[in-house]
Amino acid sequence: MKKFDEKINHFKTLLDSNMQEIYRDGPKSLVNPINYVLSGVGKRFRPILTMVVAHINNIPIKDIIYPSIAIEMLHNFTLIHDDIMDKDTIRHGKETVHKRWNNNTAILSGDAMLAISLGVLMRNNLSDSTNLVKTYIDGLLSVCEGQALDIEFEKREDVTIEEYQRMIYLKTAYMIGLSSEIGAIVSGLSQKEISLLKKFGESIGMAYQVQDDLLELFSDSNSMNKSLDSDFILNKKTFLWTSTPTNQREELQSLIQQFSGDKNKAILGLRTFIINNGVKEIAQSFINENIKNANSILDELDMDTEFLYYYSNLIFNRGN
Amino acid sequence: MKKFDEKINHFKTLLDSNMQEIYRDGPKSLVNPINYVLSGVGKRFRPILTMVVAHINNIPIKDIIYPSIAIEMLHNFTLIHDDIMDKDTIRHGKETVHKRWNNNTAILSGDAMLAISLGVLMRNNLSDSTNLVKTYIDGLLSVCEGQALDIEFEKREDVTIEEYQRMIYLKTAYMIGLSSEIGAIVSGLSQKEISLLKKFGESIGMAYQVQDDLLELFSDSNSMNKSLDSDFILNKKTFLWTSTPTNQREELQSLIQQFSGDKNKAILGLRTFIINNGVKEIAQSFINENIKNANSILDELDMDTEFLYYYSNLIFNRGN
Repeated sequence: MKKFDEKINHFKTLLDSNMQEIYRDGPKSLVNPINYVLSGVGKRFRPILTMVVAHINNIPIKDIIYPSIAIEMLHNFTLIHDDIMDKDTIRHGKETVHKRWNNNTAILSGDAMLAISLGVLMRNNLSDSTNLVKTYIDGLLSVCEGQALDIEFEKREDVTIEEYQRMIYLKTAYMIGLSSEIGAIVSGLSQKEISLLKKFGESIGMAYQVQDDLLELFSDSNSMNKSLDSDFILNKKTFLWTSTPTNQREELQSLIQQFSGDKNKAILGLRTFIINNGVKEIAQSFINENIKNANSILDELDMDTEFLYYYSNLIFNRGN
Repeated sequence: MKKFDEKINHFKTLLDSNMQEIYRDGPKSLVNPINYVLSGVGKRFRPILTMVVAHINNIPIKDIIYPSIAIEMLHNFTLIHDDIMDKDTIRHGKETVHKRWNNNTAILSGDAMLAISLGVLMRNNLSDSTNLVKTYIDGLLSVCEGQALDIEFEKREDVTIEEYQRMIYLKTAYMIGLSSEIGAIVSGLSQKEISLLKKFGESIGMAYQVQDDLLELFSDSNSMNKSLDSDFILNKKTFLWTSTPTNQREELQSLIQQFSGDKNKAILGLRTFIINNGVKEIAQSFINENIKNANSILDELDMDTEFLYYYSNLIFNRGN
């Protein structure tokens, strides 16, 4: 729908231009990498979600822009540090901070970005920001714990699908839930509505992460299978891995090992394996179930949720 | 004075025991390093300063303990990340986190510790924590900027004494100012009193850092010259370095280079140089000036500041 697309583009433009003004005065070794990251070509999925929630509750842009930017910065903080840990060298088509500069610069500019984002979060019109800050730092701890589990799982071969789901809940879904939750808090909604919108975001987030696992393998776009290499090198436990029945893991493992040889052939082999063993179907039905859940939450809300339906659908039509 | 010593010991015991309960449920790869750090044998200089300020304003322990713990955790967060950057392997007589575990664990447990400490900061009795959080995150950004300058200075040979002072203000003094400031905020003091107590802490902090530079060279205790090696290896710009007249830097540099040979001989050579060229005297008078400044701020305050005089004096009698 054209009117929603126009609004989304408008939100994105506002985010991109305002983010350029956030941190200009400081040591060059922080100002440069931080602005390098913030001028990236991310989708701004999370802050736009925040803005859509506020928009359908008639909150003016000026009251929601800074909390939304804070969310995008929190997300980028986690990417900078995760990229060091996962040794990823490319992000959104650009060199990662630790690759372009070095690990120290990446550690420190991540830390500074987090401090700045908290300050930005508090540039809002609420009489008391306590609730907003509490929500935000819960999200920060959640994403650290999710990343910690993700790394712990690299060394384990017995990770269950439930453990995997708990990990992506903490690492990905929680922060997407936080994005809609913060939109709801700034909109002054009731505790029940805040909680529903948070759950809506979390459901979207669960589906989003599993779709990401799928797209990394099934998309032909280079930007989508962005970290397939590092995932396999690091022995990451993805949805596809944990959904493969135990007695077929050996075959899966040998297919993954072929990845260090002919990459394209290995991808095709993995795709066939994932499809033939019903793993793709399991992933697809997990995604559908979570989207259905998200939509049923919207039905419970007594507000005009058409824009939210539209936006979440858009997210799930991003590729393949 | 025995009564103050007893109180300080009591505060320290409370801090140490309460810190052990802060983070127990979480991924092992975070719980273990975080509790390893928090069970260290630090002096708890910063949080005790917070508690002394609150104590002289008759604030009960239960209302100040968590903000004080938050300050100690913020300080420890910076140490974990700084130790990665500076490649320091020993801290308070124990292996640093990145040495005992690895860099990833140190990055992530630092991040998580920061999130946790913000939550702890908000466990207070104030009706609105906004001011407290703003103060805290200003301190977080300050310490990142100070560390960034410290690293930038490693590559520069023309760092002035003013630039050095700006760096230690941001990296060290600001957070000590924050410690007394947060005590003042929780005590519900006036804006003027909060501002004076902040400045008191900052003056103490400036003196503290320069004393640290001096002690690293002049103390015979191994724990005091804790990072002399890494300072020289990394070409750190200390007070002693920036206070040495430009035309004597060449001699200083050649003395520093001897450090990779006979360490004890090099230390003796450096001590003689620093004394003979009046640099030790400059450092000592900088310290005295800042202590005098701190004391004159206490005179301006309309409260019983005897305990604060005592505590700051104690800090400056910590060695040598």
